Amino acid sequence: MRNIKVTMCYRGTNYHGFQRQDNALAVQQVVEEKLSKILGGENAVIYGCSRTDTGVHALNYCFNFKTERTIPLLGLQRGLNSELPKDISILSCEEADDDFHARYSCKGKEYIYKLHCSESHDPFSEDLAFHYRRKLDFSLLQSQAKDFIGTHDFKAFCSSGSDKEITVRTIFDFSAEQNGTEVLLRVSGDGFLYNMVRIMVGTLLWINEGKIEKDTIPQIIEEKNRLKAGKTAPACGLYLNKVFY
Amino acid sequence: MRNIKVTMCYRGTNYHGFQRQDNALAVQQVVEEKLSKILGGENAVIYGCSRTDTGVHALNYCFNFKTERTIPLLGLQRGLNSELPKDISILSCEEADDDFHARYSCKGKEYIYKLHCSESHDPFSEDLAFHYRRKLDFSLLQSQAKDFIGTHDFKAFCSSGSDKEITVRTIFDFSAEQNGTEVLLRVSGDGFLYNMVRIMVGTLLWINEGKIEKDTIPQIIEEKNRLKAGKTAPACGLYLNKVFY
Repeated sequence: MRNIKVTMCYRGTNYHGFQRQDNALAVQQVVEEKLSKILGGENAVIYGCSRTDTGVHALNYCFNFKTERTIPLLGLQRGLNSELPKDISILSCEEADDDFHARYSCKGKEYIYKLHCSESHDPFSEDLAFHYRRKLDFSLLQSQAKDFIGTHDFKAFCSSGSDKEITVRTIFDFSAEQNGTEVLLRVSGDGFLYNMVRIMVGTLLWINEGKIEKDTIPQIIEEKNRLKAGKTAPACGLYLNKVFY
Repeated sequence: MRNIKVTMCYRGTNYHGFQRQDNALAVQQVVEEKLSKILGGENAVIYGCSRTDTGVHALNYCFNFKTERTIPLLGLQRGLNSELPKDISILSCEEADDDFHARYSCKGKEYIYKLHCSESHDPFSEDLAFHYRRKLDFSLLQSQAKDFIGTHDFKAFCSSGSDKEITVRTIFDFSAEQNGTEVLLRVSGDGFLYNMVRIMVGTLLWINEGKIEKDTIPQIIEEKNRLKAGKTAPACGLYLNKVFY
């Protein structure tokens, strides 16, 4: 049995996230349907590296699937791309070890959050960035983001508080870059809780707006209370950028 | 009478270019209608810096208009942006000298042409870049582009050959940048003939593909024959980037 690792990107605007849903279209369903067709009717099941929320994008999303078919990797990539809609694209296909699993083998992930910081809306980043109209103190954003780095209990930065779940995660890095009106926040870690990146970004924006006092991120982490953190930033700015194996 | 200079950007995908048409929607019509509304019913006429083709984009397009209204510049910008569709955005409004005319005062322009160079299509640049699947010799592209620089008769690089028109233009610079799968061609000059940038780009691509011999651009310019140049590259990759005054 071959185990194939696939890297793809997708524009999440028209999907209810990656994971297959009963009543709404998800990326997984579309890819599995096209893959089944390419594999000549074999009922394909793909294992994704992560859930993503409705409207969230992915630049390098990984999944794997098992097949008995002998189709060459490049033929698989080209076949899938010719079948897939324009908002999903297969970047590469590789043979993987038997025990590789896109989710369980994952050692960490990097997300990007894009802000379009300007009075004017941007015709080219519609649904691809959060249009942030307020004045942004970029160096404040940069310095405050560093307070997330390290191993902490991120319960305050998690939307649906299932109290069973372990909410300790390690953030490897959290940086910011500015290029004209575009601000990119880049955060990597060993794992992320539900809505965690969007709540961290929303907290940084509330610090920028004076709604949360600066230098209080360690205290918010300590208090483990979702109500002390900022508003969940919109899905359209978020990109799953890398998956580490 | 105030003379107001406006800079805007637009995604050209859904428009038949900038210039008002009888039977098709153009950017000019949309802007004039919204501007008339903002000016309280005054019949606004705007003077654009340039025509653009169907599907061509603009990052910094300039136009001017005259008005007796006392509306503040920031109010004008915000009012227009709240009325305009998402694919058109006003970047700035300034008071200009009486004799400023967006087209006649223009001393030059810079265009960008975007290529997405990859086997896979890009969900994020759909209609915003030309998906070029062939192998690209980037340093060849870079070196050949330099042959366009200077003052030449560009008759061979003009689509509709009105023989009355003067076809001599000066290209200030023509450079190329590569960033991952994105290749940006950047060309500036004192003026451009109809489809000129797209034919220059198409010629560079045909040189890349071996359909035109390398180092023959000076000869193609000399022969003044449209048939010797390459295919007109698709509109979706082209952006009017700057207007010089």
